[in-house]
Amino acid sequence: MQRIEHHTSHDGHQEVWQHTSATLNCEMKFAVYLPPAALQGKKCPVLYWLSGLTCTEQNFITKAGAQGYAAEHGIIVVAPDTSPRGDDVANDAAYDLGQGAGFYLNATQPPWAQHYCMHDYVVEELPALIEANFPASDARAISGHSMGGHGALTIALRNPGRYRSVSAFSPIVAPSQAPWGEKAFSAYLGNDREAWKQYDAVELVKTATERLPLLVDQGGADEFLANQLKPELLRDACRAANHPLRLNIREGYDHSYYFIASFIGEHFAHHARALA
Amino acid sequence: MQRIEHHTSHDGHQEVWQHTSATLNCEMKFAVYLPPAALQGKKCPVLYWLSGLTCTEQNFITKAGAQGYAAEHGIIVVAPDTSPRGDDVANDAAYDLGQGAGFYLNATQPPWAQHYCMHDYVVEELPALIEANFPASDARAISGHSMGGHGALTIALRNPGRYRSVSAFSPIVAPSQAPWGEKAFSAYLGNDREAWKQYDAVELVKTATERLPLLVDQGGADEFLANQLKPELLRDACRAANHPLRLNIREGYDHSYYFIASFIGEHFAHHARALA
Repeated sequence: MQRIEHHTSHDGHQEVWQHTSATLNCEMKFAVYLPPAALQGKKCPVLYWLSGLTCTEQNFITKAGAQGYAAEHGIIVVAPDTSPRGDDVANDAAYDLGQGAGFYLNATQPPWAQHYCMHDYVVEELPALIEANFPASDARAISGHSMGGHGALTIALRNPGRYRSVSAFSPIVAPSQAPWGEKAFSAYLGNDREAWKQYDAVELVKTATERLPLLVDQGGADEFLANQLKPELLRDACRAANHPLRLNIREGYDHSYYFIASFIGEHFAHHARALA
Repeated sequence: MQRIEHHTSHDGHQEVWQHTSATLNCEMKFAVYLPPAALQGKKCPVLYWLSGLTCTEQNFITKAGAQGYAAEHGIIVVAPDTSPRGDDVANDAAYDLGQGAGFYLNATQPPWAQHYCMHDYVVEELPALIEANFPASDARAISGHSMGGHGALTIALRNPGRYRSVSAFSPIVAPSQAPWGEKAFSAYLGNDREAWKQYDAVELVKTATERLPLLVDQGGADEFLANQLKPELLRDACRAANHPLRLNIREGYDHSYYFIASFIGEHFAHHARALA
């Protein structure tokens, strides 16, 4: 494991590391923010941030303005890349399939199955690495944006007991009912839609055994709202299953990091309460 | 004048506009953040932000985390591009000369003089445009980073009465004594070093008629500190001229936007006091 970036930020350290992932069978980068408390040797809880389509480990750390809140609350923030990477890793020319579009699942279909296991990487390998190499406790939270919001919701719902809190910005709440998800799931998981349900938040809510409250912020002027994101499907599913959801529709806000940066402080407060 | 970007951010609007600049003789872009107070029709003071080498109007608005502070204090923030632009505009293959490297001066030498008049653009044309087209008062402040920190300091010192406050991050305080400045000034202003003094903060402090306090933040781990930035030259010049300077050396911080984002809130507080 090799450190490839190091910056002081809000009296903590914003770093980027590279390592060989056994789960993904390739070299991976992840970003980690160590708040001042961690630099003083205190074991800190960890928020995992999952980014959206086309993103890398860079987008969140450069654009979200999260470090100030992480410093204030004493939370380590880990932001992995959004897919396996490399010349030997299957890819597609489209922005919404292949590298940069891992969808936080374990692919079962060729040629994807060999590397595309982002679910297990985020849930197992990465936390083990973080908790072994940084002053991190095993108190974990998870959040993300768009494809990464889908990742955060589904990973929290699939893995009861593993996360103290979950939130999402502009998530793809029902990939089985959205063009992005239908395309990606067909490729990664095949055409049996039964297999898709394990990675669909609206489906997972129906059978969730843990009542972990879902916090979702969604921009009302998001260009993908009606066609891809469909938060009303999550609202209806949570109502039917009596699953706690706080859904904030933020009028005027779009799909960009300007939206995330405007409300990331509220999400940190949400996670800090659960992680305390 | 045409709006080419519009995002809601911290209950205000982050926009990017394009216009034909008479001063620069080309099409230019600038970013403007309108805080909630401005959207409610209140005339707001304006902070001009000047970015560094290689930057455009995008860097500050995506990476500095400034919008929350601008919203809180009710300050409009205007971030112009860093040079004239276009296929017809003289350029150089190096990152530190030509497009992206305007140095906020009025060039006198060919081939630069035809377009490179960033001083007059920032001081005259852009504020006239802003004050005519947005709910902006004529209370102005100016700040910037690196080459833009040089720009902010020299523009404030050259134009007494025009700015209520000035600050800079990691400024090139004495371009006449730094490789970046010597290269750029030789090209834009010619080899007569007397002519350089009008764009050199350390020289301008010696004859400043207005005692506008200078706020400067400088990272102690900045990779350009000893060779290009040399804040001690400004400290010594301000002491000799009895010019008020607050110079904060921030240990561990580098030249990046992680540094700016860590202290931009303090700079907004500084400007807000002067603009109130």
